[in-house]
Amino acid sequence: MNCEILCVGTELLLGNTVNTDAADLSDLLSGLGVNVFWHTVVGDNPGRLAEAVAIARSRADLIVTTGGLGPTYDDLTKNVLAEAFGRKLEFHPEEAAFLKAWFARNTSVRYTDNNLQQAYLPEGCTVFHNDWGTAPGCAFAEDGVHVIMLPGPPNECVPMFKACAAPYLRSLSDEVILSHQIRVFGIGESAVEAIFREQMERMANPTLATYAKFGEVMLRATAKAKTEAEAEAMCRPVVEQVCRTLGSKVYGVDVDSLEALALSLLKEKGLTFATAESLTGGLIGQRFTALPGASAVYKGGAVTYCNEVKAAMLGIDRDMIEEKGAVSYETAAAMARGARIAAHADLALSATGLAGPDGDGVHPVGTVFVGLADGENVWVRQLMLGTRRARVRQLAANNAFDMLRRYLQGLPILED
Amino acid sequence: MNCEILCVGTELLLGNTVNTDAADLSDLLSGLGVNVFWHTVVGDNPGRLAEAVAIARSRADLIVTTGGLGPTYDDLTKNVLAEAFGRKLEFHPEEAAFLKAWFARNTSVRYTDNNLQQAYLPEGCTVFHNDWGTAPGCAFAEDGVHVIMLPGPPNECVPMFKACAAPYLRSLSDEVILSHQIRVFGIGESAVEAIFREQMERMANPTLATYAKFGEVMLRATAKAKTEAEAEAMCRPVVEQVCRTLGSKVYGVDVDSLEALALSLLKEKGLTFATAESLTGGLIGQRFTALPGASAVYKGGAVTYCNEVKAAMLGIDRDMIEEKGAVSYETAAAMARGARIAAHADLALSATGLAGPDGDGVHPVGTVFVGLADGENVWVRQLMLGTRRARVRQLAANNAFDMLRRYLQGLPILED
Repeated sequence: MNCEILCVGTELLLGNTVNTDAADLSDLLSGLGVNVFWHTVVGDNPGRLAEAVAIARSRADLIVTTGGLGPTYDDLTKNVLAEAFGRKLEFHPEEAAFLKAWFARNTSVRYTDNNLQQAYLPEGCTVFHNDWGTAPGCAFAEDGVHVIMLPGPPNECVPMFKACAAPYLRSLSDEVILSHQIRVFGIGESAVEAIFREQMERMANPTLATYAKFGEVMLRATAKAKTEAEAEAMCRPVVEQVCRTLGSKVYGVDVDSLEALALSLLKEKGLTFATAESLTGGLIGQRFTALPGASAVYKGGAVTYCNEVKAAMLGIDRDMIEEKGAVSYETAAAMARGARIAAHADLALSATGLAGPDGDGVHPVGTVFVGLADGENVWVRQLMLGTRRARVRQLAANNAFDMLRRYLQGLPILED
Repeated sequence: MNCEILCVGTELLLGNTVNTDAADLSDLLSGLGVNVFWHTVVGDNPGRLAEAVAIARSRADLIVTTGGLGPTYDDLTKNVLAEAFGRKLEFHPEEAAFLKAWFARNTSVRYTDNNLQQAYLPEGCTVFHNDWGTAPGCAFAEDGVHVIMLPGPPNECVPMFKACAAPYLRSLSDEVILSHQIRVFGIGESAVEAIFREQMERMANPTLATYAKFGEVMLRATAKAKTEAEAEAMCRPVVEQVCRTLGSKVYGVDVDSLEALALSLLKEKGLTFATAESLTGGLIGQRFTALPGASAVYKGGAVTYCNEVKAAMLGIDRDMIEEKGAVSYETAAAMARGARIAAHADLALSATGLAGPDGDGVHPVGTVFVGLADGENVWVRQLMLGTRRARVRQLAANNAFDMLRRYLQGLPILED
């Protein structure tokens, strides 16, 4: 099935909003075995939208739209799509009742009768009820083209895809498509590709593909079969083989991120941790606390952007910092030890280094030391992370979370 | 001038990479008075790219491409575009010499002769030399359509647009387009629109438009004239009127962000600051230290995700926290005071609250207290920031930076 994602919204064309929907939906559709061949964005303009729909239906057999389902005059996606496919809009009283109840609860949002526009949907469609906002989505098929319409806000679009559109797409096929994501840290994409390239080229079903994400690699194994159990049985050996080959560089299968894995392992083991951040300036804590439930295991820590704070908050000997330098193995170790004690935590992570653009006259930009301490030991990774400030900081945080998950998984922390 | 942005890269269609180029270029093109009407993404597939180019040239008079200029076999943008517009590729010895010198310097990147592919560009084009990577971009016009090709990596695409493509586009017109961005915090987009709507609809040249960015509003005043001085003279009164009308809610004109403004004001005044973060978990420090040069004014601070750390690192009385609660005016005030002293800083920011999804049984999710302390006083804003965790945290950080810039600009810190 070949798909075009058609996003509607002038805010995207003004550069006001980054189109994360297109990326998220592409990822989800790929996982269902759908080939996404085109992304198109048009503004809230009925003529240009109608033209874009005509182009899309001529080349794709699935059109997924985002945006333009709301109650205002420039929300025109439903009208244009319904007209293009020769369907009338039909009133759905159960959606209208839901909308009225929603506005009765959310009194801070002003209700106008316009809001009931959202209860009109193309006749004969499958309604996707919106549990995350107000505007319902829908799906229908016409002339051999499937159309799925989703709301624009990412916190409505993505959950509605998962809860409603994905089952709809699965029901279209008497085959089941199943995939597993193998998450890898500590080896580059080209090295992973070199290992699996020949095998990937030979495979037809199941398939294996690699993806690079900011400092990480993800492999996706996908199988198509008559039943889920059959697809799982086809996928499983591929997943196991990749895990065996890459060893402890695989941090998880079907997990969200290094920090999400660390959170679940910490909870499982009943352990807490703290942080001491220099070059990352709060990024490690911020990424971890972006996860709901972080407070169960994260105690906090220090952002020690200057040596005074390292001394005052972490009790680090200033003479030692002077002697060894703020960017050093010893300082990273002392920061992790100090944070653990100050925060009364079981474990602590630390990061110190040079994110650039300025160096310190001793180390090149990109020199980073990342530490992990428990009650007995401390481990420090020395890294060279390039010269791009944002990247150096993210990779330093990735390394900190990687050390933490390795500790919690009982793996060697510094090397394989 | 009506523009289509055509991004080439399979990684975008796999959801592997979010298309920030399209957003950044749209913003920059809007600032030059160009109407961006379409974004299109296709993969590294010559047939589908050629079709997309045919569609784009039929409807746009400017096509801006990103991606596919590199040295590998799937970098095919130049070839497809050159063929579509009937131009041969021409070897540029000066670009080849630059590439050879680049690889001689960057020995960690393996050199192959393929890299010299990057020195071939459509005949008669304007070469955009790449000072941020290797692959040059270019521009040419054919059949009344202007084509601009830029590399895909955002840290090459955006600076090349600013340094090379923007002057190229300006030179096409004997008119100068000039715009100013007025950055506003503390009032919603619909309220700003309500104030200026009639005026905006009446205006033709200069124009005024509003944009919402995550918890902020931006207004752009744009003027077209024969000379820059003339355009500036047309823009200036609009900017001044907006600033007068919105008062201290305008935090700056042509500044990047609240934190960037705070950084420059702190440097100017020779003041330092520290942070004490609870619900933001390091986000305030992280956003500030994402700015190069942050270390000149930022001393660090504490991430006090639990009460023990509030006591241990900031010297806050635990009985007070027990009595008043971790989410309270008093705790926010004590955190700011404590961080300032512990970090030996002139000022300190604090944030405590409930980002959700879980509440504390006392306050509703979204309750946030943000504090600012100097040597004598402490100010605390109490806020209700909704129920979306990521948004609550970002808005809390925005409020902290807003209090800081208001302090530094000598404005009322809590209200107008």
